[in-house]
Amino acid sequence: MKLDELDTPAALIDVPRMNRNIERMQARMNALGVRFRPHVKTTKCLEVVRAQLAAGATGITVSTLKEAEVFFAAGITDILYAVSIAPSKLPRAMALRQQGCDLKLVVDSVGAAGEVAKFCTELGETFEVWIEVDTDGHRSGIAPEQDALLEIGRILHDGGVRPGGVMTHAGSSYELHTPEALAALAGQERSGCVRAAQRLRDAGFPCEAVSVGSTPTALSAGKLDGVTEVRAGVYVFFDLVMHNVGVCSTDDIALSVLTTVIGHQPEKDWVMLDAGWMAMSRDRGTSKQALDFGYGLPCTLDGTPLTGWVLSSANQEHGILSPAPGTRQGQHLAAHLPIGTKLRILPNHACATGAQFPEYRALYADGETTVWSRFHGW
Amino acid sequence: MKLDELDTPAALIDVPRMNRNIERMQARMNALGVRFRPHVKTTKCLEVVRAQLAAGATGITVSTLKEAEVFFAAGITDILYAVSIAPSKLPRAMALRQQGCDLKLVVDSVGAAGEVAKFCTELGETFEVWIEVDTDGHRSGIAPEQDALLEIGRILHDGGVRPGGVMTHAGSSYELHTPEALAALAGQERSGCVRAAQRLRDAGFPCEAVSVGSTPTALSAGKLDGVTEVRAGVYVFFDLVMHNVGVCSTDDIALSVLTTVIGHQPEKDWVMLDAGWMAMSRDRGTSKQALDFGYGLPCTLDGTPLTGWVLSSANQEHGILSPAPGTRQGQHLAAHLPIGTKLRILPNHACATGAQFPEYRALYADGETTVWSRFHGW
Repeated sequence: MKLDELDTPAALIDVPRMNRNIERMQARMNALGVRFRPHVKTTKCLEVVRAQLAAGATGITVSTLKEAEVFFAAGITDILYAVSIAPSKLPRAMALRQQGCDLKLVVDSVGAAGEVAKFCTELGETFEVWIEVDTDGHRSGIAPEQDALLEIGRILHDGGVRPGGVMTHAGSSYELHTPEALAALAGQERSGCVRAAQRLRDAGFPCEAVSVGSTPTALSAGKLDGVTEVRAGVYVFFDLVMHNVGVCSTDDIALSVLTTVIGHQPEKDWVMLDAGWMAMSRDRGTSKQALDFGYGLPCTLDGTPLTGWVLSSANQEHGILSPAPGTRQGQHLAAHLPIGTKLRILPNHACATGAQFPEYRALYADGETTVWSRFHGW
Repeated sequence: MKLDELDTPAALIDVPRMNRNIERMQARMNALGVRFRPHVKTTKCLEVVRAQLAAGATGITVSTLKEAEVFFAAGITDILYAVSIAPSKLPRAMALRQQGCDLKLVVDSVGAAGEVAKFCTELGETFEVWIEVDTDGHRSGIAPEQDALLEIGRILHDGGVRPGGVMTHAGSSYELHTPEALAALAGQERSGCVRAAQRLRDAGFPCEAVSVGSTPTALSAGKLDGVTEVRAGVYVFFDLVMHNVGVCSTDDIALSVLTTVIGHQPEKDWVMLDAGWMAMSRDRGTSKQALDFGYGLPCTLDGTPLTGWVLSSANQEHGILSPAPGTRQGQHLAAHLPIGTKLRILPNHACATGAQFPEYRALYADGETTVWSRFHGW
């Protein structure tokens, strides 16, 4: 189907832009001499992940066991499940391993390490477990100098579990917006993770993998000495939050929501769209940044931003498009954007917007589209 | 499966609470002498809708054509599609009608009415169309006294389309929090919609249905003279936003997200959960209300609120539970809520949280659960 024949709302992937984003990241990783393990939580889409692997990625990162199961069933075996494992999920993780999946788990506490060790001992099986390191205080992990790091190493080792490496995610990079600050955080992410690995090795525990990353730090790191691999997810689509962080332009954003004008409220200068928050998601990530895009930046059907307009509000299936302050349209609204006009909205956060759709429409340079399915749930 | 055997995160429906909510609303509607047409966009779940119909509901309201298609396939024929129709969706809507679905469309502009009339004329077919009336300025609709109301009536009539009624949704009720303000808005919603119907009838156009509603106004209306039916959606589950509006207690909230403790950051008093925004949604509806619940209110496994705790932050698959200011836990955190502890989180907005899951787990009084599937997409 051609772009203008699609029903709305629809999640469009601009395939040339996506391929450019994939090439950009992989070229950087190659130049820095590290492996690249894309985080597939952004897309949950086999066609996208195949393009990442074809470009040179080594294995994948997942945020749920369902992602691990779906991608393993598609033939991908090198999988890092990058969320500290809940004890009740261990049988499901072991089932994957027993089927031949090289699934690596993550822990960031003595308690979780103990649960994994106990499970393995009781079953007479093993896991490869990576330890999550906290390098920026934004979420999870053990700080590089904490005693608990070596205690976890010991618990895993004594329980017959293989401590395969360390991983960190400097998620506070999303709060930055200058190249200098991003480069500094990338340096901090690298040095903290390398230091944690060194402490484990010095204590006699194996620690082969040193895995770092977030999209902003991956695109800002000056050197990655001691790092073996980088992880990043949202770079494949980019979004308005990443635009504000400063690591992409709006022309790089490969995900957009196709929508139709369904009404007008001329007194308020509102254009009503059939893309509400069910399509865009409730993500308002740009609300804390210098440039607030509301629920998204509207573009014409060919992808050109409608400068001066913003998706200012959203109900479940209604989006409200408003002009910037000082640019009233009034009674011209209906003539300017008549009922039935199709637009594309660039999202705040590609991971959240993609998740609202059971499928993407991959859009090629010639205007043709095909369905790429996306899965949902845990 | 029993509640404590479920994998996490999972969307739980407390069936006794849901049934109580359904009975409460239906009893009110019966007492007010109006039909009740529940909005199924909240649940998109056949088992829930069957319980609403069994309690006395007459027909359903939908927000997408997919909802109409799925519920029509399940035998429900009286369906109001309550979003102004996009012209490109008319063939899909007509296909439903030709299969015997009593699908009613909505328009709120001269432009959309013209598109429907043109489509019907060209095809030699007809639709029943309701006109959306704006009674509180919050979103869509034609104000009761606007000239466009009668112009739309005429366009539909001349195009061989049946103007079947008027409908309004006083969605600004979500911004209120006193019984007096809610009752006043319910009165305004009623009188504006009845007035619009009267103007259409006085001009010679049929206008049988007078349809009003939102959960807060439906539960606050003192009288509904002239109204033929009420619509409401979120009342079936309720949520923290509705709690703050004042139309339910936390004990009425029938939807919760089951989650597991996966880590601790004692220095920050954070308990890490495996329910992030992918499970809770990005909805922060209570952020603009008097009581901000963050991403949700945690409860123990039996549903008792964990007073003084809040889901303060969320990443994709990580939730961060924090104690209220002044109630530090520090090193006691891991003992208080150890790794593996299961909790339930009451959501800000049930419509948004439900949409994150491909299925619900219906939870009965005896602790047994069954799967109720939920659909996704358009």
